[in-house]
Amino acid sequence: MQGFIKRYNTLPIREIWLVDIEDGKEKLEIVGALAQRMWDASPYDVKVHLTLDRREALKDADFVTTQFRVGLLNARIKDERIPLSHGMLGQETNGAGGMFKLLRTAPVIKGIVEDMKELCPNAWLINFTNPSGMITETVIRQCGWKRCIGLCNVPVNIMLQEPAMLGLKEGDLNFEFAGLNHFHFHRVYNAHTGENVTHQIAYKMMEDDKSNMQNIQNEKFLLDHLLAMDCLPCGYHRYYYLTDEMMKKELEDFAKHETRAESVKEVERQLFELYKDPALHEMPELLGKRGGKYYSDAACETINAIYNNSGKVMVVSTENRGALPDLPEDAIVEVSARITRHGAEPLAFGHMEPAVRGMVQLMKAMEETIIEAALTGNYNKALEAFEINPLVKHGKCAQELLDEMLVAHKKYLPQFAEKIAELEAKGVTVQDETARKLCEQGL
Amino acid sequence: MQGFIKRYNTLPIREIWLVDIEDGKEKLEIVGALAQRMWDASPYDVKVHLTLDRREALKDADFVTTQFRVGLLNARIKDERIPLSHGMLGQETNGAGGMFKLLRTAPVIKGIVEDMKELCPNAWLINFTNPSGMITETVIRQCGWKRCIGLCNVPVNIMLQEPAMLGLKEGDLNFEFAGLNHFHFHRVYNAHTGENVTHQIAYKMMEDDKSNMQNIQNEKFLLDHLLAMDCLPCGYHRYYYLTDEMMKKELEDFAKHETRAESVKEVERQLFELYKDPALHEMPELLGKRGGKYYSDAACETINAIYNNSGKVMVVSTENRGALPDLPEDAIVEVSARITRHGAEPLAFGHMEPAVRGMVQLMKAMEETIIEAALTGNYNKALEAFEINPLVKHGKCAQELLDEMLVAHKKYLPQFAEKIAELEAKGVTVQDETARKLCEQGL
Amino acid sequence: MQGFIKRYNTLPIREIWLVDIEDGKEKLEIVGALAQRMWDASPYDVKVHLTLDRREALKDADFVTTQFRVGLLNARIKDERIPLSHGMLGQETNGAGGMFKLLRTAPVIKGIVEDMKELCPNAWLINFTNPSGMITETVIRQCGWKRCIGLCNVPVNIMLQEPAMLGLKEGDLNFEFAGLNHFHFHRVYNAHTGENVTHQIAYKMMEDDKSNMQNIQNEKFLLDHLLAMDCLPCGYHRYYYLTDEMMKKELEDFAKHETRAESVKEVERQLFELYKDPALHEMPELLGKRGGKYYSDAACETINAIYNNSGKVMVVSTENRGALPDLPEDAIVEVSARITRHGAEPLAFGHMEPAVRGMVQLMKAMEETIIEAALTGNYNKALEAFEINPLVKHGKCAQELLDEMLVAHKKYLPQFAEKIAELEAKGVTVQDETARKLCEQGL
Amino acid sequence: MQGFIKRYNTLPIREIWLVDIEDGKEKLEIVGALAQRMWDASPYDVKVHLTLDRREALKDADFVTTQFRVGLLNARIKDERIPLSHGMLGQETNGAGGMFKLLRTAPVIKGIVEDMKELCPNAWLINFTNPSGMITETVIRQCGWKRCIGLCNVPVNIMLQEPAMLGLKEGDLNFEFAGLNHFHFHRVYNAHTGENVTHQIAYKMMEDDKSNMQNIQNEKFLLDHLLAMDCLPCGYHRYYYLTDEMMKKELEDFAKHETRAESVKEVERQLFELYKDPALHEMPELLGKRGGKYYSDAACETINAIYNNSGKVMVVSTENRGALPDLPEDAIVEVSARITRHGAEPLAFGHMEPAVRGMVQLMKAMEETIIEAALTGNYNKALEAFEINPLVKHGKCAQELLDEMLVAHKKYLPQFAEKIAELEAKGVTVQDETARKLCEQGL
Repeated sequence: MQGFIKRYNTLPIREIWLVDIEDGKEKLEIVGALAQRMWDASPYDVKVHLTLDRREALKDADFVTTQFRVGLLNARIKDERIPLSHGMLGQETNGAGGMFKLLRTAPVIKGIVEDMKELCPNAWLINFTNPSGMITETVIRQCGWKRCIGLCNVPVNIMLQEPAMLGLKEGDLNFEFAGLNHFHFHRVYNAHTGENVTHQIAYKMMEDDKSNMQNIQNEKFLLDHLLAMDCLPCGYHRYYYLTDEMMKKELEDFAKHETRAESVKEVERQLFELYKDPALHEMPELLGKRGGKYYSDAACETINAIYNNSGKVMVVSTENRGALPDLPEDAIVEVSARITRHGAEPLAFGHMEPAVRGMVQLMKAMEETIIEAALTGNYNKALEAFEINPLVKHGKCAQELLDEMLVAHKKYLPQFAEKIAELEAKGVTVQDETARKLCEQGL
Repeated sequence: MQGFIKRYNTLPIREIWLVDIEDGKEKLEIVGALAQRMWDASPYDVKVHLTLDRREALKDADFVTTQFRVGLLNARIKDERIPLSHGMLGQETNGAGGMFKLLRTAPVIKGIVEDMKELCPNAWLINFTNPSGMITETVIRQCGWKRCIGLCNVPVNIMLQEPAMLGLKEGDLNFEFAGLNHFHFHRVYNAHTGENVTHQIAYKMMEDDKSNMQNIQNEKFLLDHLLAMDCLPCGYHRYYYLTDEMMKKELEDFAKHETRAESVKEVERQLFELYKDPALHEMPELLGKRGGKYYSDAACETINAIYNNSGKVMVVSTENRGALPDLPEDAIVEVSARITRHGAEPLAFGHMEPAVRGMVQLMKAMEETIIEAALTGNYNKALEAFEINPLVKHGKCAQELLDEMLVAHKKYLPQFAEKIAELEAKGVTVQDETARKLCEQGL
Repeated sequence: MQGFIKRYNTLPIREIWLVDIEDGKEKLEIVGALAQRMWDASPYDVKVHLTLDRREALKDADFVTTQFRVGLLNARIKDERIPLSHGMLGQETNGAGGMFKLLRTAPVIKGIVEDMKELCPNAWLINFTNPSGMITETVIRQCGWKRCIGLCNVPVNIMLQEPAMLGLKEGDLNFEFAGLNHFHFHRVYNAHTGENVTHQIAYKMMEDDKSNMQNIQNEKFLLDHLLAMDCLPCGYHRYYYLTDEMMKKELEDFAKHETRAESVKEVERQLFELYKDPALHEMPELLGKRGGKYYSDAACETINAIYNNSGKVMVVSTENRGALPDLPEDAIVEVSARITRHGAEPLAFGHMEPAVRGMVQLMKAMEETIIEAALTGNYNKALEAFEINPLVKHGKCAQELLDEMLVAHKKYLPQFAEKIAELEAKGVTVQDETARKLCEQGL
Repeated sequence: MQGFIKRYNTLPIREIWLVDIEDGKEKLEIVGALAQRMWDASPYDVKVHLTLDRREALKDADFVTTQFRVGLLNARIKDERIPLSHGMLGQETNGAGGMFKLLRTAPVIKGIVEDMKELCPNAWLINFTNPSGMITETVIRQCGWKRCIGLCNVPVNIMLQEPAMLGLKEGDLNFEFAGLNHFHFHRVYNAHTGENVTHQIAYKMMEDDKSNMQNIQNEKFLLDHLLAMDCLPCGYHRYYYLTDEMMKKELEDFAKHETRAESVKEVERQLFELYKDPALHEMPELLGKRGGKYYSDAACETINAIYNNSGKVMVVSTENRGALPDLPEDAIVEVSARITRHGAEPLAFGHMEPAVRGMVQLMKAMEETIIEAALTGNYNKALEAFEINPLVKHGKCAQELLDEMLVAHKKYLPQFAEKIAELEAKGVTVQDETARKLCEQGL
């Protein structure tokens, strides 16, 4: 709301519809009331509608934004704890957790797109449901809905922090991003001299890497590795390039019941308490801890850029078109792109150096494979995705993890119903106690 | 000068060096004096230096712009008249004439780049010497000088005129360009609604195609052909898609000694008379007739965009990087690109529809082939380029044309000296009387 | 039949079904009777069935071969004479004539494939209906029938004649072919030394080019052009590289009513007289004049290679798979390929040199465009194909030719019925007298 | 020698030169004497020359075969034991061990190629020095020596065993291979019916995978994973798809001092005892245990195929040319190829399915990166290769492993001399006792 209020002059919103499912009704009412209070405290006359019927909200919409978690934070707890209980990283965006989030989410987003085709065929879908890149690939490439832009706040964060790391201000650096969501790389130039300062930042990252995300343990990259690249990784690359270190830290959190999911769940509980306060009509401080900072601003800015044809360069998930010639031309990539009235125009990045190229190609392959599994319910494809995902230990152990997670997420995986029944019959059960209890409670 | 004066606030030029060769000394002095008068009439204290020694001018330059014609307008007369005397289009940019312009120019630009490597290694080379795309390919891909941007005023003209054709103003349309210099295509969108209006413009082109260039006969494209494309051609495509009509018109001009070269030569003569007038300190009206309108403004704007890191989207010749995935990733293409302090960032265009793709691929092949001939003096490669160029009639007649043009341009083709001697020994002579006389006068 | 009789030991045929349409009934009976006489004169007991119902023939077939001409030789007369009457090459495979042959044939082959899906889903379709490459592209890429191989006798001829040109025997040279049907290139190596002898053959072609086809005027290629290539063209490239010379010769034939179509029609008439002779039970000498020599042998050999998994290397139209990386991976190309029980395995050729690459890319683009027109009845796409085909003069004249040919072939172009009616209403008529008379006779 | 004796009729060898380095003098003499005895026992008069001067041997050679191990089996012991001592797979072909083998070997093979350019410019280099694919890439792509074919016995083994697994004989199946050395995939067809039997073999692999190599632990692949693929992996893929299981087994061997290197060293010792026996003039049984079975036969067969232009289809490392369109066109790939007098003609494989494609692309990237390190001595690039190699644990631990291995292999890594000195100064030492002792003995 803050983002929209701030931009009202250029983006004169008429109405806002907030949608949630039955299980989120209370949350919806709390958030909806706060949202209306925020507008009421502004000079603008905007009505916030609340509904549990998404079709009512979609009808004639101009912009649709999606951010939801099928299975709520309890599902995330499973996404993180079950892999860790097998000695593997959960990584809720591209690891075993992320793949399961996709398995749960893809059928739902497909349904939303089908509704949009019918109810608001000219609307833009701004997605920041994670795994954002894979969801955007599902929407654009699999469902054929071109008017979609995928967002993520990681590049926003980088572009805010890296100038500071060099003692510069926003606007003093030029960035060129390319790769995949939570797996992108970037080159940096001084905006006043044109000089490539990518390696200068690498050196600064050894002192204090402010560009990392709050939700990622701040382990230092290896300088020699950074210098081998002609670009910089993103915070999430720690899981791939510092797997050993990240594993150790996450196992500690696991033991203390302080996985990210568990922490966030507690913060959210507190946040909703605050939101209920009728005196509150701006965002509380605490939200910062929730993570996803800048997310909402990125969404507002994207809508604003489309509506006003601003040509602003943002880092978004969109159709490749050749911008990253190392990936298929019709794959979804996360790249610097100009946002105009007719969509995102990606800036061509050119070939990546081999070692960067290879990892990006592998991750895109993993994405395509798990998306196929999600949309068809093909168990073998899901296993195949697990067996090539660098965050999963490969072998029988990967299959055991897959099977246990299928059983754990049974409620939200109708496309795998038959397979899950078979697994249960074979006696597959959830080992991690916390996760198992959630299952037992029907969560 | 007007362009620089207008932009002085953001682009605080200190000195300008104008360079010409010995043969252009008088022209240099006339133009140089006028240039200085223009600055003197401005509030700014800028010194215009004149020199016949390009190394003196290059020393420590920040920006170098090149626009020259090896052999002057007399060479262009040969480029146009000799092909026409064989019943073929000369087309001084991509046809037989253009290929010969490249053969004469490539060795010279190579020398300039070598000087720049030594004397101003951080300078940007803004080229608008024609054939602009092929020269840029020579500079970047063959000579390895990356800090180069190739310019052309055709897209500028299109972006100014097409809004008017729809009754709109500049800024009301979004453009996406891709292709090669003088062989680019574009898609157009309404900047307020996002609607693709490419075909709307096609219909308007049937009434009055204001987007065409002054120097190209204004023959109407075939509507049904335009509607088969998912983009629009540029003015020069008339030579390829309306070859028959263009041929007839050019043959008429040929007969009347009103080829473009001959007309321009007369206009230039008049222009230089005007330039001499010490009272003149702004551009005379007549310059409009010369063609190349907006050229100088495009150059100033590019320099300004680089210097100020403006991110302005311009249509330039630059490295492909995948922006046009139907062409090699390291080929030079003419595309919409953001201009920043570290160069041009091309906007990815994606695959072209087959018929457009095929022509662009053929023309790039022709460019690569004639460039190889230009830099190595390989006669067979020159012939091969002639035999695939769509503006040349294929067969023995193409070879006869090539041979005659080699003899006619002997003075400026040292790399073919041996072959030309052999041709002369075999009795190859220039048939067109006008062209032959120029040769006889050592021009 | 000769080909099958010769191979009976390895290819034990049980029955042969010959199919024709009602108009070909008499031909079918004459040819069928001769075919049965040939088998009867052999030691083998094979029954030749004749039918006008293709579904009867297709039922449970193992191999289907297609060679037909929609509209018979009268249509070819129009394909050749109408373009020539406009001063353009007809070129009944890839020129205006070839494009029209495709427009007439694509819907018919599509119907055959649909019948095959139903009646003989495991059969192989061996196509030598021209334009063979485009028909194969239609079958495999558009209709999705993968078990198809396209044949042409041009490479067979080259591989027989080029050894002789160097004073060598069959088997003394290795060939690598790649490109498109009637538009392929090849490299040649000495099979005993590994030496690349491509240019040696180029020199020999200046003396006597035995590798040319009987149906193509034997104009000499330009040696300097051949030497610029790193491969050799095929006979049909004369139309593209010696357009001027070929035009002149064809115009002479046109004037004398000796176009290829008219000559062949006369030869066929004589042949069928001979075929009727009950004493005849082998192929008559005269067939050589008909052209298409080796065609039948190539077909038998392909079937034999598939049936016996021979791995024989043949030059066929098949899916690219990357063999020619300059064309789309799923395009149909004509390449050297191993023929096995599971189909054609193309031999990777690698990148072509630019000038060769550009022409092949253009022709593939032309093929894709006219195929789209053929299958959708999209007039604009047909025009677009005409405006990029190098054998057509570009401009309004191309459209006039297209329109006249549409009207001339009305009977066989149901997909363009509406457009043709519109053209007739506008008064478009066939100008060439011979062609017009055929139309008036309902042929 | 057996392979050559067997093929003498078609491959009439005149002389054979065996070369070794000073350290291998005794081995050379033993093997050389045995080799001569084998020829003497044959009907053919062939002289086996022995030399420590490779230039003497290379002079005027027709075929050069290379199989050597820089640092002998002691280096392999380090390649395997040091990674295992860090809890990682050594994998002496593509893992940490294989990367180090490349680092030691690339400079040596480069020197050999330089000698060949001078001494036998028309010779063919048949390489089976491991890592065979990377060495071939170094020779062809980096050193520019095109007349090179890389060999491996893994595909030979597969093509011998898989028919047996289906109860068929050699020749009953058709194979299509593509990928990289020790990282290739294949599709299988019934040679009599054309049927794709790839998945049938997958099922049989669950019973008894005879296609695996003797030197690889026979852990079973996961059936569900195999069925997700449209092709089959090779034995080495166990390291990538069953990492967990392979790790456990190798750690057991490590503890028992039965790593492959240690076992082979013992077998070799015994073999050389046998070889010394003047009565021995054929290969002893024991050689089978050495592994590398069929290697020598593959080499003889390749030479024979080249010499006789046989067109035999073999699986070799050669230039891609587009055969595997998912990898760069000029990369070295291991594919089915026809072997002719002018080299290997790869069979186009087409796109791989995503999950297979991604892994192959990653491994090629790893290869390119470590090759760059090997030829330039760039430490950062070596680290980068370690950090993306799926067999290495990523993070600081990878760097520690790299550093320790650099120190351990110091003697054979002149290109890293400076860096190694720096590491030693920092106190980096070899931890594994066995490996350290070898170092201390100067081995």
